[in-house]
Amino acid sequence: MTSNSSGDLFIIGGNEDKEGDLEVLSIFVQDAIQNGGTIGVLTTATGYPEEVGGEYRDLFLKLGASNVELVHIDTRTKAEEDRYTQVVSSLSALFITGGDQNRLSSIIGGTTFFKEVQKAWQNGMIIAGTSAGAAIMSRHMIISGKTKVKHDKINVEIGVGFGFLEDVVIDQHFSQRARFGRLLYAIAQNPQIIGVGIDENTAIWVKDGGKYFEVIGEHSVTVIDGCKLSFVDIADEAESDEVTIAGVSLHSIAKGYQFDMEKRQLIMKEKGTAQ
Amino acid sequence: MTSNSSGDLFIIGGNEDKEGDLEVLSIFVQDAIQNGGTIGVLTTATGYPEEVGGEYRDLFLKLGASNVELVHIDTRTKAEEDRYTQVVSSLSALFITGGDQNRLSSIIGGTTFFKEVQKAWQNGMIIAGTSAGAAIMSRHMIISGKTKVKHDKINVEIGVGFGFLEDVVIDQHFSQRARFGRLLYAIAQNPQIIGVGIDENTAIWVKDGGKYFEVIGEHSVTVIDGCKLSFVDIADEAESDEVTIAGVSLHSIAKGYQFDMEKRQLIMKEKGTAQ
Repeated sequence: MTSNSSGDLFIIGGNEDKEGDLEVLSIFVQDAIQNGGTIGVLTTATGYPEEVGGEYRDLFLKLGASNVELVHIDTRTKAEEDRYTQVVSSLSALFITGGDQNRLSSIIGGTTFFKEVQKAWQNGMIIAGTSAGAAIMSRHMIISGKTKVKHDKINVEIGVGFGFLEDVVIDQHFSQRARFGRLLYAIAQNPQIIGVGIDENTAIWVKDGGKYFEVIGEHSVTVIDGCKLSFVDIADEAESDEVTIAGVSLHSIAKGYQFDMEKRQLIMKEKGTAQ
Repeated sequence: MTSNSSGDLFIIGGNEDKEGDLEVLSIFVQDAIQNGGTIGVLTTATGYPEEVGGEYRDLFLKLGASNVELVHIDTRTKAEEDRYTQVVSSLSALFITGGDQNRLSSIIGGTTFFKEVQKAWQNGMIIAGTSAGAAIMSRHMIISGKTKVKHDKINVEIGVGFGFLEDVVIDQHFSQRARFGRLLYAIAQNPQIIGVGIDENTAIWVKDGGKYFEVIGEHSVTVIDGCKLSFVDIADEAESDEVTIAGVSLHSIAKGYQFDMEKRQLIMKEKGTAQ
Protein backbone atom coordinates (compact mmCIF):
# COMPACT_ATOMS: atom_id res chain seq x y z
CA MET A 1 0.00 0.00 0.00
CA THR A 2 3.04 2.23 0.15
CA SER A 3 4.26 1.42 -3.35
CA ASN A 4 4.94 4.16 -5.83
CA SER A 5 3.59 2.12 -8.71
CA SER A 6 0.09 0.83 -9.21
CA GLY A 7 -0.89 -2.49 -7.66
CA ASP A 8 -0.97 -5.87 -9.35
CA LEU A 9 -4.12 -6.93 -11.12
CA PHE A 10 -5.57 -10.45 -11.13
CA ILE A 11 -7.96 -10.75 -14.04
CA ILE A 12 -9.73 -14.09 -13.80
CA GLY A 13 -11.73 -15.66 -16.65
CA GLY A 14 -14.53 -16.83 -14.35
CA ASN A 15 -15.40 -20.18 -12.83
CA GLU A 16 -12.15 -20.35 -10.86
CA ASP A 17 -11.67 -23.47 -8.78
CA LYS A 18 -13.18 -23.15 -5.28
CA GLU A 19 -12.98 -26.77 -4.11
CA GLY A 20 -9.75 -28.32 -5.40
CA ASP A 21 -6.31 -26.72 -5.10
CA LEU A 22 -7.77 -23.20 -5.47
CA GLU A 23 -4.70 -22.34 -7.55
CA VAL A 24 -5.83 -18.99 -8.91
CA LEU A 25 -7.43 -17.63 -5.70
CA SER A 26 -4.50 -18.91 -3.67
CA ILE A 27 -1.93 -16.94 -5.69
CA PHE A 28 -4.07 -13.83 -5.34
CA VAL A 29 -4.44 -14.24 -1.57
CA GLN A 30 -0.69 -14.80 -1.12
CA ASP A 31 0.01 -11.61 -3.05
CA ALA A 32 -2.58 -9.75 -0.95
CA ILE A 33 -1.09 -11.07 2.30
CA GLN A 34 2.36 -9.86 1.25
CA ASN A 35 0.79 -6.46 0.60
CA GLY A 36 -0.29 -6.39 4.27
CA GLY A 37 -3.88 -5.56 5.19
CA THR A 38 -7.51 -6.42 4.66
CA ILE A 39 -9.00 -7.98 1.51
CA GLY A 40 -12.19 -6.23 0.44
CA VAL A 41 -14.84 -8.06 -1.57
CA LEU A 42 -16.96 -5.83 -3.79
CA THR A 43 -20.26 -7.55 -4.52
CA THR A 44 -21.88 -4.88 -6.70
CA ALA A 45 -22.02 -7.05 -9.84
CA THR A 46 -24.05 -9.86 -8.30
CA GLY A 47 -27.70 -10.08 -7.37
CA TYR A 48 -26.71 -12.38 -4.47
CA PRO A 49 -24.21 -10.25 -2.55
CA GLU A 50 -24.49 -12.11 0.77
CA GLU A 51 -24.04 -15.59 -0.68
CA VAL A 52 -21.36 -14.71 -3.22
CA GLY A 53 -19.49 -12.36 -0.90
CA GLY A 54 -19.72 -14.83 1.97
CA GLU A 55 -18.27 -17.65 -0.12
CA TYR A 56 -15.25 -15.56 -1.11
CA ARG A 57 -14.75 -14.38 2.47
CA ASP A 58 -14.67 -17.99 3.67
CA LEU A 59 -12.28 -18.99 0.88
CA PHE A 60 -9.90 -16.10 1.49
CA LEU A 61 -9.83 -16.81 5.24
CA LYS A 62 -9.20 -20.50 4.52
CA LEU A 63 -6.31 -19.46 2.26
CA GLY A 64 -4.69 -17.49 5.10
CA ALA A 65 -6.08 -13.97 4.86
CA SER A 66 -6.36 -12.46 8.35
CA ASN A 67 -9.17 -10.07 7.59
CA VAL A 68 -11.82 -9.94 4.86
CA GLU A 69 -14.37 -7.16 4.54
CA LEU A 70 -17.49 -7.40 2.36
CA VAL A 71 -18.34 -4.20 0.52
CA HIS A 72 -22.02 -4.31 -0.44
CA ILE A 73 -22.61 -1.30 -2.63
CA ASP A 74 -25.76 -1.64 -4.70
CA THR A 75 -26.66 2.00 -5.40
CA ARG A 76 -24.75 5.09 -6.50
CA THR A 77 -25.90 6.75 -3.27
CA LYS A 78 -24.06 4.17 -1.18
CA ALA A 79 -21.00 4.62 -3.42
CA GLU A 80 -20.81 8.19 -2.11
CA GLU A 81 -21.22 7.31 1.59
CA ASP A 82 -18.25 7.66 3.95
CA ARG A 83 -18.78 4.23 5.50
CA TYR A 84 -17.87 2.67 2.13
CA THR A 85 -15.42 5.18 0.71
CA GLN A 86 -13.34 5.22 3.89
CA VAL A 87 -12.94 1.45 3.88
CA VAL A 88 -10.80 1.57 0.77
CA SER A 89 -7.69 3.07 2.37
CA SER A 90 -7.46 0.12 4.78
CA LEU A 91 -7.43 -2.51 2.02
CA SER A 92 -4.38 -4.35 0.69
CA ALA A 93 -6.51 -5.82 -2.06
CA LEU A 94 -9.98 -5.52 -3.55
CA PHE A 95 -11.70 -8.53 -5.11
CA ILE A 96 -14.55 -7.80 -7.54
CA THR A 97 -17.03 -10.66 -7.88
CA GLY A 98 -18.82 -11.82 -11.00
CA GLY A 99 -22.35 -10.94 -12.03
CA ASP A 100 -23.23 -8.24 -14.51
CA GLN A 101 -20.53 -5.78 -15.61
CA ASN A 102 -23.20 -3.22 -16.46
CA ARG A 103 -24.06 -3.05 -12.76
CA LEU A 104 -20.43 -2.32 -11.95
CA SER A 105 -20.12 0.50 -14.46
CA SER A 106 -23.52 2.03 -13.75
CA ILE A 107 -23.37 1.85 -9.94
CA ILE A 108 -19.64 2.39 -9.29
CA GLY A 109 -18.31 4.29 -12.31
CA GLY A 110 -17.32 7.88 -11.55
CA THR A 111 -18.38 7.76 -7.87
CA THR A 112 -16.30 8.79 -4.86
CA PHE A 113 -15.88 5.10 -4.06
CA PHE A 114 -14.43 4.53 -7.54
CA LYS A 115 -12.05 7.46 -7.16
CA GLU A 116 -10.86 6.09 -3.82
CA VAL A 117 -10.27 2.68 -5.41
CA GLN A 118 -8.39 4.25 -8.27
CA LYS A 119 -6.21 6.26 -5.88
CA ALA A 120 -5.52 3.26 -3.66
CA TRP A 121 -4.63 1.12 -6.68
CA GLN A 122 -2.24 3.79 -7.93
CA ASN A 123 -0.59 3.58 -4.52
CA GLY A 124 -0.20 -0.19 -4.66
CA MET A 125 -3.53 -1.77 -3.72
CA ILE A 126 -4.06 -5.06 -5.57
CA ILE A 127 -7.26 -5.45 -7.59
CA ALA A 128 -8.68 -8.80 -8.59
CA GLY A 129 -11.85 -9.57 -10.49
CA THR A 130 -13.53 -12.60 -11.94
CA SER A 131 -15.97 -12.83 -14.85
CA ALA A 132 -17.86 -9.50 -14.83
CA GLY A 133 -15.21 -8.32 -12.37
CA ALA A 134 -12.61 -9.19 -15.02
CA ALA A 135 -14.45 -7.51 -17.89
CA ILE A 136 -14.67 -4.22 -15.96
CA MET A 137 -10.86 -3.97 -15.50
CA SER A 138 -9.99 -2.51 -18.87
CA ARG A 139 -10.85 0.88 -20.30
CA HIS A 140 -12.84 -0.79 -23.09
CA MET A 141 -15.31 -3.41 -21.97
CA ILE A 142 -17.50 -5.84 -23.86
CA ILE A 143 -20.98 -5.22 -22.47
CA SER A 144 -22.84 -7.58 -24.74
CA GLY A 145 -22.01 -9.83 -27.59
CA LYS A 146 -23.39 -12.70 -29.59
CA THR A 147 -21.39 -15.65 -30.84
CA LYS A 148 -21.95 -17.80 -33.89
CA VAL A 149 -22.40 -20.87 -31.72
CA LYS A 150 -25.79 -19.67 -30.58
CA HIS A 151 -26.67 -16.93 -33.04
CA ASP A 152 -26.57 -16.28 -36.74
CA LYS A 153 -24.34 -13.28 -36.50
CA ILE A 154 -21.69 -11.87 -34.26
CA ASN A 155 -22.56 -8.65 -32.49
CA VAL A 156 -20.40 -6.83 -29.98
CA GLU A 157 -21.19 -3.76 -27.94
CA ILE A 158 -18.31 -1.96 -26.26
CA GLY A 159 -18.73 0.14 -23.12
CA VAL A 160 -16.46 1.91 -20.66
CA GLY A 161 -14.76 -0.07 -17.92
CA PHE A 162 -12.75 0.97 -14.87
CA GLY A 163 -9.62 1.60 -16.93
CA PHE A 164 -6.97 -0.18 -14.87
CA LEU A 165 -5.67 -1.45 -18.21
CA GLU A 166 -5.49 0.92 -21.14
CA ASP A 167 -5.66 -0.17 -24.78
CA VAL A 168 -6.97 -3.59 -23.84
CA VAL A 169 -10.34 -5.30 -24.04
CA ILE A 170 -10.87 -8.36 -21.86
CA ASP A 171 -13.11 -11.28 -22.69
CA GLN A 172 -13.75 -13.93 -20.03
CA HIS A 173 -15.04 -17.55 -20.15
CA PHE A 174 -13.16 -17.35 -23.43
CA SER A 175 -12.73 -20.87 -24.84
CA GLN A 176 -15.55 -22.34 -22.77
CA ARG A 177 -18.11 -19.96 -24.28
CA ALA A 178 -16.54 -19.90 -27.75
CA ARG A 179 -15.81 -16.18 -27.75
CA PHE A 180 -12.95 -16.07 -30.24
CA GLY A 181 -15.15 -14.66 -33.00
CA ARG A 182 -16.60 -11.88 -30.89
CA LEU A 183 -13.21 -10.78 -29.54
CA LEU A 184 -11.82 -10.75 -33.08
CA TYR A 185 -14.82 -8.65 -34.07
CA ALA A 186 -14.12 -6.19 -31.24
CA ILE A 187 -10.51 -5.86 -32.45
CA ALA A 188 -11.64 -5.38 -36.04
CA GLN A 189 -13.71 -2.45 -34.78
CA ASN A 190 -10.86 -1.12 -32.62
CA PRO A 191 -7.52 -2.29 -34.05
CA GLN A 192 -5.45 -0.05 -31.78
CA ILE A 193 -6.36 -2.07 -28.67
CA ILE A 194 -5.42 -5.66 -27.92
CA GLY A 195 -7.94 -8.35 -27.09
CA VAL A 196 -7.18 -10.61 -24.15
CA GLY A 197 -9.42 -13.69 -23.95
CA ILE A 198 -9.12 -15.45 -20.61
CA ASP A 199 -10.30 -19.05 -20.16
CA GLU A 200 -12.22 -20.20 -17.08
CA ASN A 201 -10.15 -21.10 -14.00
CA THR A 202 -7.31 -19.12 -15.57
CA ALA A 203 -6.07 -15.60 -14.93
CA ILE A 204 -3.61 -12.98 -16.01
CA TRP A 205 -1.52 -11.61 -13.16
CA VAL A 206 -0.62 -8.11 -14.30
CA LYS A 207 2.59 -6.87 -12.68
CA ASP A 208 4.98 -3.95 -12.66
CA GLY A 209 2.35 -1.27 -13.21
CA GLY A 210 0.85 -3.04 -16.20
CA LYS A 211 4.09 -3.64 -18.10
CA TYR A 212 3.56 -7.38 -18.38
CA PHE A 213 1.36 -10.23 -17.26
CA GLU A 214 1.90 -13.82 -16.27
CA VAL A 215 -0.64 -16.54 -16.93
CA ILE A 216 -1.79 -18.63 -13.95
CA GLY A 217 -4.37 -21.38 -13.67
CA GLU A 218 -5.65 -24.32 -15.66
CA HIS A 219 -6.17 -23.22 -19.26
CA SER A 220 -4.81 -20.51 -21.52
CA VAL A 221 -5.05 -16.88 -22.50
CA THR A 222 -5.50 -15.75 -26.11
CA VAL A 223 -4.09 -12.39 -27.18
CA ILE A 224 -5.42 -10.84 -30.39
CA ASP A 225 -3.29 -7.93 -31.60
CA GLY A 226 -4.53 -5.87 -34.51
CA CYS A 227 -1.74 -3.29 -34.56
CA LYS A 228 -0.17 -4.73 -37.70
CA LEU A 229 -3.44 -5.39 -39.55
CA SER A 230 -2.96 -5.22 -43.28
CA PHE A 231 -6.68 -4.84 -44.01
CA VAL A 232 -10.04 -4.61 -42.32
CA ASP A 233 -13.52 -4.36 -43.82
CA ILE A 234 -16.22 -4.11 -41.23
CA ALA A 235 -18.43 -1.56 -42.92
CA ASP A 236 -19.17 -3.02 -46.30
CA GLU A 237 -22.67 -4.18 -45.44
CA ALA A 238 -23.60 -4.70 -49.05
CA GLU A 239 -21.42 -7.75 -49.52
CA SER A 240 -21.67 -9.38 -46.09
CA ASP A 241 -22.47 -8.73 -42.46
CA GLU A 242 -19.29 -10.60 -41.62
CA VAL A 243 -16.01 -8.86 -41.02
CA THR A 244 -12.97 -9.40 -43.22
CA ILE A 245 -9.70 -8.81 -41.41
CA ALA A 246 -6.15 -9.71 -42.46
CA GLY A 247 -2.81 -9.84 -40.70
CA VAL A 248 -3.94 -10.19 -37.09
CA SER A 249 -1.17 -11.29 -34.75
CA LEU A 250 -2.30 -13.95 -32.30
CA HIS A 251 -0.77 -15.56 -29.23
CA SER A 252 -2.08 -18.34 -27.02
CA ILE A 253 -0.40 -18.44 -23.64
CA ALA A 254 -0.47 -21.08 -20.92
CA LYS A 255 0.54 -21.13 -17.28
CA GLY A 256 4.05 -19.99 -16.46
CA TYR A 257 4.51 -17.82 -19.52
CA GLN A 258 4.65 -14.04 -19.47
CA PHE A 259 3.52 -11.49 -22.03
CA ASP A 260 5.03 -8.02 -22.48
CA MET A 261 2.07 -5.66 -22.81
CA GLU A 262 4.17 -2.78 -24.13
CA LYS A 263 6.08 -4.69 -26.79
CA ARG A 264 3.04 -6.91 -27.34
CA GLN A 265 5.09 -10.09 -27.42
CA LEU A 266 5.74 -13.23 -25.43
CA ILE A 267 8.59 -12.92 -22.94
CA MET A 268 11.04 -15.73 -23.61
CA LYS A 269 11.95 -17.83 -20.61
CA GLU A 270 15.54 -17.92 -19.49
CA LYS A 271 17.83 -20.60 -20.84
CA GLY A 272 17.50 -23.97 -19.20
CA THR A 273 13.73 -23.94 -19.38
CA ALA A 274 11.56 -24.84 -22.35
CA GLN A 275 12.03 -22.50 -25.30
CA MET B 1 -12.72 -31.91 -68.35
CA THR B 2 -10.16 -31.06 -70.99
CA SER B 3 -8.29 -28.52 -68.88
CA ASN B 4 -4.57 -28.79 -68.37
CA SER B 5 -4.81 -27.65 -64.77
CA SER B 6 -6.62 -29.32 -61.92
CA GLY B 7 -10.29 -28.59 -61.39
CA ASP B 8 -11.81 -26.12 -58.96
CA LEU B 9 -12.57 -27.24 -55.43
CA PHE B 10 -15.63 -26.25 -53.41
CA ILE B 11 -14.91 -26.89 -49.77
CA ILE B 12 -18.09 -26.30 -47.78
CA GLY B 13 -18.19 -25.93 -43.99
CA GLY B 14 -21.32 -28.05 -43.64
CA ASN B 15 -25.00 -27.24 -43.15
CA GLU B 16 -25.21 -25.36 -46.46
CA ASP B 17 -28.58 -23.85 -47.25
CA LYS B 18 -30.91 -26.30 -49.03
CA GLU B 19 -34.21 -24.39 -48.82
CA GLY B 20 -33.53 -20.68 -49.26
CA ASP B 21 -31.41 -19.17 -52.02
CA LEU B 22 -29.07 -22.21 -52.07
CA GLU B 23 -26.23 -19.76 -52.63
CA VAL B 24 -23.32 -22.13 -52.08
CA LEU B 25 -24.74 -25.15 -53.93
CA SER B 26 -25.92 -22.90 -56.73
CA ILE B 27 -22.44 -21.49 -57.42
CA PHE B 28 -21.05 -25.03 -57.44
CA VAL B 29 -23.70 -26.29 -59.88
CA GLN B 30 -23.18 -23.33 -62.23
CA ASP B 31 -19.44 -24.05 -62.27
CA ALA B 32 -20.16 -27.75 -62.91
CA ILE B 33 -22.57 -26.94 -65.76
CA GLN B 34 -19.93 -24.75 -67.40
CA ASN B 35 -17.56 -27.69 -67.11
CA GLY B 36 -20.02 -29.72 -69.20
CA GLY B 37 -21.15 -33.17 -68.08
CA THR B 38 -22.64 -35.19 -65.25
CA ILE B 39 -22.40 -34.35 -61.54
CA GLY B 40 -21.53 -37.40 -59.46
CA VAL B 41 -22.53 -37.60 -55.79
CA LEU B 42 -20.26 -39.77 -53.65
CA THR B 43 -22.19 -40.96 -50.59
CA THR B 44 -19.45 -43.03 -48.90
CA ALA B 45 -19.24 -40.82 -45.80
CA THR B 46 -22.87 -41.17 -44.79
CA GLY B 47 -24.78 -44.06 -43.26
CA TYR B 48 -27.88 -42.91 -45.21
CA PRO B 49 -26.62 -42.93 -48.81
CA GLU B 50 -30.04 -43.13 -50.49
CA GLU B 51 -31.61 -40.28 -48.52
CA VAL B 52 -28.59 -37.99 -48.52
CA GLY B 53 -27.62 -38.74 -52.11
CA GLY B 54 -31.21 -38.40 -53.29
CA GLU B 55 -31.58 -34.99 -51.65
CA TYR B 56 -28.46 -33.64 -53.37
CA ARG B 57 -29.56 -35.16 -56.72
CA ASP B 58 -32.90 -33.35 -56.46
CA LEU B 59 -31.22 -30.08 -55.48
CA PHE B 60 -28.66 -30.22 -58.29
CA LEU B 61 -31.38 -30.98 -60.87
CA LYS B 62 -33.47 -28.11 -59.48
CA LEU B 63 -30.42 -25.84 -59.87
CA GLY B 64 -30.13 -26.72 -63.55
CA ALA B 65 -27.85 -29.73 -63.73
CA SER B 66 -28.88 -31.95 -66.63
CA ASN B 67 -27.60 -35.20 -65.21
CA VAL B 68 -26.74 -36.36 -61.69
CA GLU B 69 -25.33 -39.78 -60.87
CA LEU B 70 -25.24 -41.23 -57.35
CA VAL B 71 -22.07 -43.16 -56.53
CA HIS B 72 -22.79 -45.48 -53.62
CA ILE B 73 -19.46 -47.00 -52.67
CA ASP B 74 -19.51 -48.45 -49.18
CA THR B 75 -16.72 -51.03 -49.35
CA ARG B 76 -13.16 -51.09 -50.68
CA THR B 77 -14.24 -53.97 -52.96
CA LYS B 78 -16.77 -51.75 -54.69
CA ALA B 79 -14.12 -49.03 -55.01
CA GLU B 80 -12.19 -51.45 -57.27
CA GLU B 81 -15.17 -52.42 -59.47
CA ASP B 82 -15.35 -51.18 -63.06
CA ARG B 83 -18.96 -50.04 -62.76
CA TYR B 84 -17.80 -47.36 -60.29
CA THR B 85 -14.32 -46.56 -61.53
CA GLN B 86 -15.51 -46.08 -65.11
CA VAL B 87 -18.15 -43.57 -64.08
CA VAL B 88 -15.51 -41.05 -63.10
CA SER B 89 -14.34 -40.16 -66.59
CA SER B 90 -17.88 -39.04 -67.52
CA LEU B 91 -18.17 -36.57 -64.64
CA SER B 92 -17.75 -32.80 -64.85
CA ALA B 93 -17.89 -32.61 -61.08
CA LEU B 94 -17.91 -34.88 -58.03
CA PHE B 95 -19.76 -33.87 -54.88
CA ILE B 96 -18.72 -35.62 -51.65
CA THR B 97 -21.45 -35.66 -48.99
CA GLY B 98 -21.02 -35.27 -45.25
CA GLY B 99 -20.93 -38.08 -42.71
CA ASP B 100 -17.74 -39.51 -41.24
CA GLN B 101 -14.41 -38.58 -42.84
CA ASN B 102 -12.88 -41.78 -41.49
CA ARG B 103 -15.23 -43.74 -43.76
CA LEU B 104 -13.98 -41.75 -46.75
CA SER B 105 -10.33 -42.35 -46.01
CA SER B 106 -10.71 -46.00 -45.03
CA ILE B 107 -13.06 -47.03 -47.88
CA ILE B 108 -11.83 -44.81 -50.74
CA GLY B 109 -8.21 -43.95 -49.91
CA GLY B 110 -5.70 -45.60 -52.27
CA THR B 111 -8.31 -47.51 -54.32
CA THR B 112 -8.66 -47.56 -58.10
CA PHE B 113 -11.72 -45.32 -57.71
CA PHE B 114 -9.62 -42.79 -55.81
CA LYS B 115 -6.88 -42.88 -58.48
CA GLU B 116 -9.49 -42.27 -61.18
CA VAL B 117 -10.87 -39.31 -59.22
CA GLN B 118 -7.39 -37.90 -58.74
CA LYS B 119 -6.62 -38.26 -62.45
CA ALA B 120 -9.94 -36.71 -63.51
CA TRP B 121 -9.43 -33.81 -61.09
CA GLN B 122 -5.94 -33.20 -62.46
CA ASN B 123 -7.58 -32.96 -65.88
CA GLY B 124 -10.16 -30.41 -64.75
CA MET B 125 -12.96 -32.26 -62.96
CA ILE B 126 -14.45 -30.11 -60.19
CA ILE B 127 -14.58 -31.59 -56.70
CA ALA B 128 -16.92 -30.34 -53.99
CA GLY B 129 -17.39 -31.61 -50.48
CA THR B 130 -19.33 -30.59 -47.41
CA SER B 131 -18.57 -31.30 -43.75
CA ALA B 132 -16.74 -34.69 -43.77
CA GLY B 133 -16.46 -34.22 -47.54
CA ALA B 134 -14.68 -30.93 -46.83
CA ALA B 135 -12.35 -32.33 -44.19
CA ILE B 136 -11.13 -35.06 -46.56
CA MET B 137 -9.99 -32.55 -49.22
CA SER B 138 -6.63 -31.65 -47.74
CA ARG B 139 -3.56 -33.82 -47.30
CA HIS B 140 -3.78 -33.39 -43.53
CA MET B 141 -7.18 -34.05 -42.01
CA ILE B 142 -8.57 -33.61 -38.52
CA ILE B 143 -10.06 -37.00 -37.71
CA SER B 144 -11.06 -36.24 -34.15
CA GLY B 145 -10.77 -33.36 -31.80
CA LYS B 146 -12.13 -32.03 -28.55
CA THR B 147 -12.93 -28.41 -27.85
CA LYS B 148 -12.89 -26.56 -24.55
CA VAL B 149 -16.60 -25.80 -24.88
CA LYS B 150 -17.49 -29.39 -24.09
CA HIS B 151 -14.30 -30.85 -22.66
CA ASP B 152 -11.60 -29.93 -20.22
CA LYS B 153 -8.80 -30.13 -22.70
CA ILE B 154 -8.23 -29.75 -26.38
CA ASN B 155 -7.18 -32.85 -28.25
CA VAL B 156 -6.61 -33.17 -31.97
CA GLU B 157 -5.81 -36.22 -34.03
CA ILE B 158 -4.55 -35.70 -37.57
CA GLY B 159 -4.99 -38.27 -40.33
CA VAL B 160 -4.40 -38.45 -44.06
CA GLY B 161 -6.94 -36.92 -46.43
CA PHE B 162 -7.33 -37.06 -50.21
CA GLY B 163 -4.62 -34.43 -50.73
CA PHE B 164 -6.31 -32.09 -53.23
CA LEU B 165 -4.84 -29.30 -51.13
CA GLU B 166 -1.29 -29.60 -49.85
CA ASP B 167 0.02 -27.90 -46.69
CA VAL B 168 -3.48 -27.17 -45.49
CA VAL B 169 -5.72 -28.58 -42.79
CA ILE B 170 -9.44 -27.89 -43.07
CA ASP B 171 -11.84 -27.56 -40.17
CA GLN B 172 -15.56 -27.32 -40.89
CA HIS B 173 -18.59 -26.13 -38.83
CA PHE B 174 -15.89 -23.77 -37.59
CA SER B 175 -17.52 -20.92 -35.64
CA GLN B 176 -20.74 -22.82 -35.02
CA ARG B 177 -18.93 -25.61 -33.17
CA ALA B 178 -16.32 -23.36 -31.57
CA ARG B 179 -13.34 -25.01 -33.23
CA PHE B 180 -10.86 -22.13 -33.11
CA GLY B 181 -8.89 -23.68 -30.25
CA ARG B 182 -8.56 -27.08 -31.87
CA LEU B 183 -7.44 -25.67 -35.22
CA LEU B 184 -4.88 -23.50 -33.44
CA TYR B 185 -3.71 -26.63 -31.63
CA ALA B 186 -3.34 -28.47 -34.94
CA ILE B 187 -1.22 -25.61 -36.29
CA ALA B 188 0.90 -25.55 -33.13
CA GLN B 189 1.65 -29.21 -33.81
CA ASN B 190 2.27 -28.60 -37.52
CA PRO B 191 3.34 -24.98 -38.06
CA GLN B 192 4.31 -25.52 -41.70
CA ILE B 193 0.70 -26.02 -42.77
CA ILE B 194 -2.09 -23.47 -42.71
CA GLY B 195 -5.38 -24.03 -40.95
CA VAL B 196 -8.55 -23.10 -42.82
CA GLY B 197 -11.66 -23.00 -40.63
CA ILE B 198 -14.85 -22.83 -42.67
CA ASP B 199 -18.15 -21.74 -41.13
CA GLU B 200 -21.43 -23.47 -41.89
CA ASN B 201 -23.27 -22.43 -45.08
CA THR B 202 -19.96 -20.98 -46.25
CA ALA B 203 -17.32 -22.34 -48.60
CA ILE B 204 -13.96 -21.71 -50.14
CA TRP B 205 -13.96 -21.91 -53.93
CA VAL B 206 -10.41 -22.93 -54.80
CA LYS B 207 -9.41 -21.83 -58.27
CA ASP B 208 -6.49 -21.77 -60.67
CA GLY B 209 -5.05 -25.11 -59.62
CA GLY B 210 -5.06 -24.21 -55.93
CA LYS B 211 -3.32 -20.84 -56.25
CA TYR B 212 -6.08 -18.94 -54.49
CA PHE B 213 -9.58 -19.26 -53.07
CA GLU B 214 -12.64 -17.06 -52.92
CA VAL B 215 -15.07 -17.13 -50.02
CA ILE B 216 -18.74 -17.71 -50.86
CA GLY B 217 -21.78 -18.09 -48.63
CA GLU B 218 -23.18 -16.66 -45.44
CA HIS B 219 -20.41 -16.52 -42.85
CA SER B 220 -16.63 -16.36 -42.89
CA VAL B 221 -13.45 -18.38 -43.21
CA THR B 222 -10.65 -18.19 -40.67
CA VAL B 223 -7.07 -18.77 -41.82
CA ILE B 224 -4.46 -19.62 -39.18
CA ASP B 225 -0.91 -19.35 -40.51
CA GLY B 226 1.94 -20.53 -38.30
CA CYS B 227 4.78 -19.96 -40.76
CA LYS B 228 6.10 -16.93 -38.89
CA LEU B 229 5.63 -18.33 -35.40
CA SER B 230 8.11 -16.86 -32.97
CA PHE B 231 7.61 -19.58 -30.37
CA VAL B 232 5.69 -22.76 -29.68
CA ASP B 233 5.63 -24.97 -26.60
CA ILE B 234 3.42 -27.96 -27.01
CA ALA B 235 5.58 -30.55 -25.29
CA ASP B 236 6.26 -29.09 -21.86
CA GLU B 237 3.77 -31.31 -20.06
CA ALA B 238 5.19 -30.46 -16.67
CA GLU B 239 3.92 -26.90 -16.65
CA SER B 240 0.61 -27.27 -18.47
CA ASP B 241 -1.32 -29.44 -20.89
CA GLU B 242 -2.16 -26.28 -22.77
CA VAL B 243 -0.15 -25.08 -25.72
CA THR B 244 1.73 -21.80 -25.72
CA ILE B 245 2.17 -20.33 -29.19
CA ALA B 246 3.27 -16.84 -30.22
CA GLY B 247 3.22 -14.89 -33.44
CA VAL B 248 0.47 -16.68 -35.32
CA SER B 249 -0.82 -14.78 -38.32
CA LEU B 250 -4.60 -14.85 -38.59
CA HIS B 251 -7.11 -13.78 -41.23
CA SER B 252 -10.89 -13.83 -41.15
CA ILE B 253 -12.42 -13.63 -44.62
CA ALA B 254 -16.01 -13.02 -45.69
CA LYS B 255 -17.87 -13.43 -48.97
CA GLY B 256 -16.38 -11.77 -52.01
CA TYR B 257 -12.80 -11.71 -50.75
CA GLN B 258 -10.00 -13.86 -52.11
CA PHE B 259 -6.97 -15.35 -50.41
CA ASP B 260 -3.66 -16.13 -52.11
CA MET B 261 -2.67 -19.61 -50.91
CA GLU B 262 0.91 -19.32 -52.12
CA LYS B 263 1.70 -15.90 -50.66
CA ARG B 264 -0.61 -16.65 -47.74
CA GLN B 265 -2.24 -13.25 -47.82
CA LEU B 266 -5.53 -11.58 -48.64
CA ILE B 267 -5.84 -10.47 -52.26
CA MET B 268 -6.71 -6.80 -52.28
CA LYS B 269 -9.74 -5.87 -54.33
CA GLU B 270 -9.28 -3.49 -57.24
CA LYS B 271 -9.66 0.22 -56.66
CA GLY B 272 -13.20 1.46 -56.47
CA THR B 273 -14.27 -1.30 -54.09
CA ALA B 274 -13.84 -1.38 -50.34
CA GLN B 275 -10.20 -1.50 -49.29
